[in-house]
Amino acid sequence: MPSSPVRTIHQHQHHLGWDRANTPALTVAPGSTVTFETVDSSGGQLGQGATVADIAKLDFSKVNPVTGPLFVDGAEPGDALKVTIEAFQPSGWGWTANIPGFGLLAEQFTEPALQLWQYDAATLAPAMYGPGGRVPLKPFVGTIGLALAEAGTHGIVPPRRVGGNMDVRDLAAGTVLYLPVEVAGGLFSLGDTHAAQGDGEVCGTAIESPMAVTLSVDLVKGAKLPFPRFTTPGPVSRHLDGKGYEVTTGIGPDLFQAARDAVSAMVDLLADRFGLAPVDAYMLCSVCADLRISEIVDQPNWVVSFYFPRIVFE
Amino acid sequence: MPSSPVRTIHQHQHHLGWDRANTPALTVAPGSTVTFETVDSSGGQLGQGATVADIAKLDFSKVNPVTGPLFVDGAEPGDALKVTIEAFQPSGWGWTANIPGFGLLAEQFTEPALQLWQYDAATLAPAMYGPGGRVPLKPFVGTIGLALAEAGTHGIVPPRRVGGNMDVRDLAAGTVLYLPVEVAGGLFSLGDTHAAQGDGEVCGTAIESPMAVTLSVDLVKGAKLPFPRFTTPGPVSRHLDGKGYEVTTGIGPDLFQAARDAVSAMVDLLADRFGLAPVDAYMLCSVCADLRISEIVDQPNWVVSFYFPRIVFE
Repeated sequence: MPSSPVRTIHQHQHHLGWDRANTPALTVAPGSTVTFETVDSSGGQLGQGATVADIAKLDFSKVNPVTGPLFVDGAEPGDALKVTIEAFQPSGWGWTANIPGFGLLAEQFTEPALQLWQYDAATLAPAMYGPGGRVPLKPFVGTIGLALAEAGTHGIVPPRRVGGNMDVRDLAAGTVLYLPVEVAGGLFSLGDTHAAQGDGEVCGTAIESPMAVTLSVDLVKGAKLPFPRFTTPGPVSRHLDGKGYEVTTGIGPDLFQAARDAVSAMVDLLADRFGLAPVDAYMLCSVCADLRISEIVDQPNWVVSFYFPRIVFE
Repeated sequence: MPSSPVRTIHQHQHHLGWDRANTPALTVAPGSTVTFETVDSSGGQLGQGATVADIAKLDFSKVNPVTGPLFVDGAEPGDALKVTIEAFQPSGWGWTANIPGFGLLAEQFTEPALQLWQYDAATLAPAMYGPGGRVPLKPFVGTIGLALAEAGTHGIVPPRRVGGNMDVRDLAAGTVLYLPVEVAGGLFSLGDTHAAQGDGEVCGTAIESPMAVTLSVDLVKGAKLPFPRFTTPGPVSRHLDGKGYEVTTGIGPDLFQAARDAVSAMVDLLADRFGLAPVDAYMLCSVCADLRISEIVDQPNWVVSFYFPRIVFE
């Protein structure tokens, strides 16, 4: 059980860029537990009654807000901020969209698409996907990071060496994350919570779902991390792997293109086998299928594999 | 249980290039079961008494032999060869090497290194790694593929759209692999069997271990696969995941460099924590840690994560 949260940073205390000049929403000592309330990654533009027409109206200057920043006393450049993710309070709803111009197969999927989800926030039972299939859930934090040393406002969409929009699906309850501190206090923020996602987040969105996140913060002095790292408390795929996987591959000298080839082949396979519209197969892949680098040494060709969990349809 | 193998292709029936002009070692009808005996990926140059000095003497014209080819009656260009991998007879020994000029961190690890393994071929209990740790085993076929449509001899090291040296660690017992046929009969061969490997095979070698492989072949007419695909009969990581993972990341606009950064950080972590020589940590990563693409859509920066199974040391 998480220890009792002592302080909450509320939903309205969010910001839209990483900036070392941002005013802390809260200051705490190492060892403190804090709850962060988040808004969804659309910044509230897509709600439970959203339609596909709302995708075209999205104001991108408002996307991916993060709640914070939290100033941690004593954090200095060169330290690592140790973040123990303790618990999630999911909202029970979410959305997945194909946003034109965004996503691994953006050239193939040029039209907006939207699927809304309802799920049981208490049991986290696998959630029905409207077009077909049932997706196991594992809430996690998509965007979690610190301010950069460089002055100025840095956009939230790209992740950087201090973390941010990493979309690592295993930043879930029990995981301990270490982030490289570059400014005094660290200036830690999070948002973009997801109810489920596969490795890659291939269509560009997951099950985007607002939730509250409770975590504790601590410091590792002088850790000098090159990039974030984390420790998982146990297996990471058992919610998905019970029935095995369908796997497609892409093979060639460029990992990015190999990933595109593997995902494209899986979209075709799911569309053919289950009668899904290709864009619905693509969005389904994004919330549950995993991109893995099977081989990166047999010059000049690498192998990227895309693992779709068969439990979704079995 | 595998069905009774009707035919065996022996160890000496191997070849060193993919070539549509290769003479079949055996011709069978679809539905047949065949056993392939393999030599190790050094082509017998590194045996149970090998030393690091033997790495420098390797004749690369003899590496990565494959046993075959098998001609499957009725296989035609555009079909898929369906290969059901039924069983392995592992030899109980293997080797892992750092071969200068080969591997993801070749610039960092320029000196040859070699570790020999002994394992229990009957129980496949986790194998002791000389420098430290114990590695769960899962035998699989590193190189498995077909002849290319293009005439001439094509080297075995790079995998191609017809498969080959894919080093996909889940081409293990029970997996069903579909390969794109480009020539009459397919001309199927395999070799480069491994007792264990992580996704990526980052140092360039796995637990290289000769073994016999029993499989059945069948045809899917007119499948027109762009690349190989496969189906796993169940979970793929449960031999590794019981204690969770240590994970390092690399973040940036190039997946290859991000993979290098993630692996380099893990080598440092393991060397520091367990007192391993960096090259030994690197070889250990190659046989059990997995490269995953966590995020490939948050332009311009992608996230590659490297998952090291904690069970190796816990």
